[in-house]
Amino acid sequence: MTRYQHLANLLAERIEQGLYRAGEKLPSVRTLSQEHGVSISTVQQAYQTLETLRLITPQPRSGYFVATRKAQPPVPAMSRPVQRPVEVTQWDQVLEMLEARRDKDIILFGGGSPDVTQPSLKPLWREMSRVVQHHPTEILSYDELAGRRELREQVARLMLDGGSTVTADDIVITSGCHSGLSIALLAVCKPGDIVAVESPTFYGTMQLLRGFGIKAIEIPTDPESGISIEALELALEQWPIKGVILVPNCNNPLGFIMPEARKRAVLALAQRHDIVIFEDDIYGELAMEYPRPRTIHSFDIDGRVLMCSSFTKTVAPGLRVGWIVPGRYRDRVMHMKYASSGTTPPATQLAVATFVREGHYHRHVRRMRQIYQSNMETYTCWLRQYFPCGICVTRPLGGYMLWVELPEVVDMVCVAKQLCRLKIQVAPGSLFSASGKYRNCLRINCALPTTEKHRLVMEQLGEAVHRAIDQDANA
Amino acid sequence: MTRYQHLANLLAERIEQGLYRAGEKLPSVRTLSQEHGVSISTVQQAYQTLETLRLITPQPRSGYFVATRKAQPPVPAMSRPVQRPVEVTQWDQVLEMLEARRDKDIILFGGGSPDVTQPSLKPLWREMSRVVQHHPTEILSYDELAGRRELREQVARLMLDGGSTVTADDIVITSGCHSGLSIALLAVCKPGDIVAVESPTFYGTMQLLRGFGIKAIEIPTDPESGISIEALELALEQWPIKGVILVPNCNNPLGFIMPEARKRAVLALAQRHDIVIFEDDIYGELAMEYPRPRTIHSFDIDGRVLMCSSFTKTVAPGLRVGWIVPGRYRDRVMHMKYASSGTTPPATQLAVATFVREGHYHRHVRRMRQIYQSNMETYTCWLRQYFPCGICVTRPLGGYMLWVELPEVVDMVCVAKQLCRLKIQVAPGSLFSASGKYRNCLRINCALPTTEKHRLVMEQLGEAVHRAIDQDANA
Repeated sequence: MTRYQHLANLLAERIEQGLYRAGEKLPSVRTLSQEHGVSISTVQQAYQTLETLRLITPQPRSGYFVATRKAQPPVPAMSRPVQRPVEVTQWDQVLEMLEARRDKDIILFGGGSPDVTQPSLKPLWREMSRVVQHHPTEILSYDELAGRRELREQVARLMLDGGSTVTADDIVITSGCHSGLSIALLAVCKPGDIVAVESPTFYGTMQLLRGFGIKAIEIPTDPESGISIEALELALEQWPIKGVILVPNCNNPLGFIMPEARKRAVLALAQRHDIVIFEDDIYGELAMEYPRPRTIHSFDIDGRVLMCSSFTKTVAPGLRVGWIVPGRYRDRVMHMKYASSGTTPPATQLAVATFVREGHYHRHVRRMRQIYQSNMETYTCWLRQYFPCGICVTRPLGGYMLWVELPEVVDMVCVAKQLCRLKIQVAPGSLFSASGKYRNCLRINCALPTTEKHRLVMEQLGEAVHRAIDQDANA
Repeated sequence: MTRYQHLANLLAERIEQGLYRAGEKLPSVRTLSQEHGVSISTVQQAYQTLETLRLITPQPRSGYFVATRKAQPPVPAMSRPVQRPVEVTQWDQVLEMLEARRDKDIILFGGGSPDVTQPSLKPLWREMSRVVQHHPTEILSYDELAGRRELREQVARLMLDGGSTVTADDIVITSGCHSGLSIALLAVCKPGDIVAVESPTFYGTMQLLRGFGIKAIEIPTDPESGISIEALELALEQWPIKGVILVPNCNNPLGFIMPEARKRAVLALAQRHDIVIFEDDIYGELAMEYPRPRTIHSFDIDGRVLMCSSFTKTVAPGLRVGWIVPGRYRDRVMHMKYASSGTTPPATQLAVATFVREGHYHRHVRRMRQIYQSNMETYTCWLRQYFPCGICVTRPLGGYMLWVELPEVVDMVCVAKQLCRLKIQVAPGSLFSASGKYRNCLRINCALPTTEKHRLVMEQLGEAVHRAIDQDANA
């Protein structure tokens, strides 16, 4: 983080905490410069940043003042999905979104890509290049089915941070977390089975269920504490549910971290009803809290948690390196890995193993956590600024996604189509429901840098939402 | 090919054609040197090669003589598998074989790896390294779901050689041919469905069926002309078969190329019974004939052939780059690609695309075809030399696999276990049958170079087979 960003964050915090009140004059540029031992231009840049965020306003010949702000938007309420198993729909919409990646000019606010432009990734490119030059025969050959041992050893080390004690032999490398979850589902379920999911749930996960003919039952989920254990229990009593897919840490799209007591409670429930937990920890390492939160897997004693994760969000999607800790399902998982994707390419595995072993991974993730946190604050400010009153916005504890609930009258599916023509891609909430609920919701990818270009896009987005409301009022 | 190899091949051919007869003295080293305009040492090396192959024998102070040979072993007869749908077994044995890859000292005669040590692959490493350095952001990002257009364009060009006129839009990139076939099966079949296969069939394909709960019906197959169309028709009349998996070009494990008339006939049969053809062309580019044989896909008019292939056998398995031409099943294939493996890594795709575009691919494949052909001849000689009389051996028209049928009393599953202790891995025939038939058969990977080390292994293999026969005689 540069000096001016550091200073801007500090001032933003003080404003947030009420140390500087709305309307109050801020210290002069010269005063701050002396106080913090930084240059005049650094202070000016910091003030400009806060101005962009609409946290402060300049008054000619008087200096900067704390802006009179709208209140922090409230968090959405517990979701209320349909309470019965349904076949997942929305594939055409998801495919449309995926195909937007073809167009290099489109701004992908709807996708899940992390920021892969940071210099802290440079050691990874270097390592990939080195691997190719030094181990050509090795990287051109078939890999072990479970994946490279060097990598599995590093993954085992990382998993200690989430509270899980596993060895390299307990881990199966997969082509990303998505493929991991796919293998886990194929290993446990057959077509016609029912699997419970949080509601909303990442559309990619939903489409896995659809692909394999598995029905989804969406369970009410609180944007701050996660899946309703009571509602899950009711569903388990009523339906022959095979398992539940959970993203308990830095949930996608809601951003919550399930409190530890609730993680234990959901595991106990799974034990009582003898169901499987598919735990997706893909964003877990991007939690703001330190040390990072524990996984449900770390509490598991009878191998019923199949944990899936990857380096997709923490490092880069193009690597396609993830893993499963399959617990008691190892044999089936090995078979389904062989049947569904076969072995994984050795080159990227070797490069990532070194990236982790030499400490570059931890440095990079530390940096990204700060960037994403700061981005989410900025995007929340922009939402407050450009979107209508009455919206609800999540307050994520990690990851880089914001979930926005708009007034009921807004149909984001229609708005998304209009935005598409402006080369802006957004993810309407309906993609995150098996039955197409949440049409008035929206997920925003805050990994996109908070540049002027993206501020303008958020402004356009806000205008489109305002228009939708006006049209409804005139109809 | 070096000069001495060229000369050795020439002499071997003349012996094969009877121009030099058994027992006849061969020209002196000096004569051949003058005749062919090569050095004395080149001729000596050629003669040594032929000696290793037991085609000629040296007689002190007299020169080289054509060896008195056993006759060329006959080709196995048409297979006679069980004629009803069965669940595929043998997974434990396949897993054991896959796990042998962990041990770096083991000699993998049972696997399917090509030779990745040839210098004609160097441009590929260079390109991989260049891609990493010049397009870091691109290779770290999510790819298009269908795969990189640059690569799909090159694949479309390659497919012209097999008679198929397709565009980049007709191709979906997959993580190897195995994953392609997996996606194709998931797109068309559901658990409980029946799929017909050639018998024997590659064990990886069999295990896909098992993984997805699909039953296999093995169809009698001729080692020179392919699947019995008559037997397939009978099966189609008797059972509700969804499709048939065929490897019509350079079949694995039998090595045949289906004559064009039979390719058309099997397609017509598929049309009449409205079933799908899953065509696996992974070895097709390694056919000895020029131009390469046509695919069944090239005759398809109604999109019922799902063609799968990859660069695994022609370039390198570690790339994990393959493709599907999904015909009328494109939508389902896109969904199942998303559901089963997700997107594919961009780095290897870009590197291979350049490798093909710049002509390195064709140069490399030309070279490998010659090497594999020459290897298979040598391995056949060794089989003749070290194995008991009465064996049958295929005469492949491409690829690099030999299929050996031993006397009925030999149980290759037991022999394989003994060999395992000697760090030699072989693939018993039973892996290539859904119900574990062909226990007296064996597939040999002739991509392993014909070095003294491998000659010794073949000798050990022959001894183990001899022992098995002796034990049976004494029992």
